[in-house]
Formats: sequence, C-alpha cells, structure tokens
Amino acid sequence: MEITYRPIGVIHSPFTDLKEMPIQPTSAASAPGIAEVFPEFADGLKDLEGFSHVILLYHLHQALWVELTVTPFLGSAKRGIFATRAPTRPNPIGLSIVQLLRVDGNRLELGNIDILDGTPLLDIKPYVPDFDRPKKTRAGWLESERGKVKDARSDDRFR
Amino acid sequence: MEITYRPIGVIHSPFTDLKEMPIQPTSAASAPGIAEVFPEFADGLKDLEGFSHVILLYHLHQALWVELTVTPFLGSAKRGIFATRAPTRPNPIGLSIVQLLRVDGNRLELGNIDILDGTPLLDIKPYVPDFDRPKKTRAGWLESERGKVKDARSDDRFR
Repeated sequence: MEITYRPIGVIHSPFTDLKEMPIQPTSAASAPGIAEVFPEFADGLKDLEGFSHVILLYHLHQALWVELTVTPFLGSAKRGIFATRAPTRPNPIGLSIVQLLRVDGNRLELGNIDILDGTPLLDIKPYVPDFDRPKKTRAGWLESERGKVKDARSDDRFR
Repeated sequence: MEITYRPIGVIHSPFTDLKEMPIQPTSAASAPGIAEVFPEFADGLKDLEGFSHVILLYHLHQALWVELTVTPFLGSAKRGIFATRAPTRPNPIGLSIVQLLRVDGNRLELGNIDILDGTPLLDIKPYVPDFDRPKKTRAGWLESERGKVKDARSDDRFR
C-alpha cells in the first residue's frame, strides 16, 4: 500500500546545513522561521491566529536512508528508531511544536524552529492542551538526558 | 512534488464506524487499542517501553475529500482546517498522543485511543516533555470549548 501526499507549503529558516542545527525547538540554537503555505491552501489558515503554538508536520527531505536502530544526538547508546526523534525513520515525517507569533496572509511567523530551510510542509495543526498535554509522563531512556536538549546541536551523522 | 509513504503497521481499536467515536484520546469514550507494527520494523521499537506516552501519526484512510473550511465537532462555527483537528485536510495525517501501557514484541498496547480500527500507521515517536510541552499556551477559538472534549463524540459529518 502506497500513500501519496503533496506539500502544502515550505519552511524557511536560517538552517541550511544538517550539521550544527538545534535538535529541537526547545534548543537554545533554535531560531525564528516562516511556514509559507501555498496560496491555494491559504483559506485553511483562518482562525489559526488565536493559537500560541502549532504542531508542524513536514517531510524530512534530507533523510536519505532508513535505519531501525540509531545513536541519537542525546546519549551514546543505540536506540530503536521509534524510541527516538532521529530522521532515518521508515516514513521520514518530522514533527515540531512551535510558537506561532503571527499569521500574515499565507505566511506563519514562527518563534523557535529546528527545521532545515526548504523543508516541504505537510500539515499544520493547532496545539491544544486539552488534547496534547498528557499528565504524569515518563520519558524512558531520555529521563537521564533531561535538560540537555537546550545545548545540544546536530552533527553530520544523519547527513 | 509527490511524497510517498508506506504503512509501518496498523491500528486495532473497538471503533469500526466514523460515527459515535471519541474525538480525541482525552475523550471519555476513548478506549484501549493496539498498534501492530509489521515484523520488518519491530527492531525500531527497542527502548520504547520506558515511555509513558507515544505520538502516533497515521493515515486517515476514511477521509475521502478535502475541505479547507469545516465545522468541527466542537463549536458551531466554520473554521479554517489548519485551525482544527478535523480529517478533511489536504494531507490527511492524524496525530494522537496516547498512553503506552506495554510493548509486547511488535504490538504496542495503548491506553486511550480515538482511532478507527484498521487505520494505517505511519510513524511512532516518543512523547518527550522537554520537547513537546510548551509553556504559556493559548488555544484560540478552542479556549471557549475547554473541557468539552471529554463528552464530545463524532457524528457522520466527515463520513
């Protein structure tokens, strides 16, 4: 079974190289960016401005191979890909929860992104605490890495 | 530009009809379910068991048309599709943050899902509060609907 999608837009960011990037929007190195939605989809942005955060789904177009176990940027052990946010996933869909600063026509001004410039955008969803904020969470192997995301940057392991 | 994905597995749930479903995992009507990952991807599940919650991405295979403005299940006004979680999106990718109860080989036992039985699974990501829990959020038009997700169920408007 094949599932085919088409980009609804493109991400613009200061990050032009997979090396030395922030590894998450909460990294200190993250930077403002733009999600440009193609004009034919702009009507779908109505009512989005009142949300402080959006969930972006995008195609990790520079993920060129699949690896089911990887050594992620945090920690030094090999982990199952579905227990990480690394890009070499069977379906390379990226997800970031980012601050929405302003909607200007078909452009979303975003406060803190960790996304490569030119990345194809697949979907935008409103972030809704009632839906998306589970209580009493435990972050598995990442518990011992808490607080480290801020200073971590990518290297060239997935390039 | 076309982007092609293949399912990594399938969701099993008690929900066999798009009508009368929970509209989110946090709805009272949500129920336990299973994410079955195809055997060839099972190695990717290593280390997932320590996480209390996972983010599921899936193909909304029963979303048969695209509508850029919709009347969602909460509220009565027409909204831009990207300001809702409705299924008639240009790329019908569903997202749920659900409780992970147990990993049993290639099967994830999930505590509370809002997903139609037989839905093709695209990706599994660990839920990580350090990455995924923004502070000081505002939920736009959904602020006035807070607390209503619990009792809301779907009807046949997207069927």
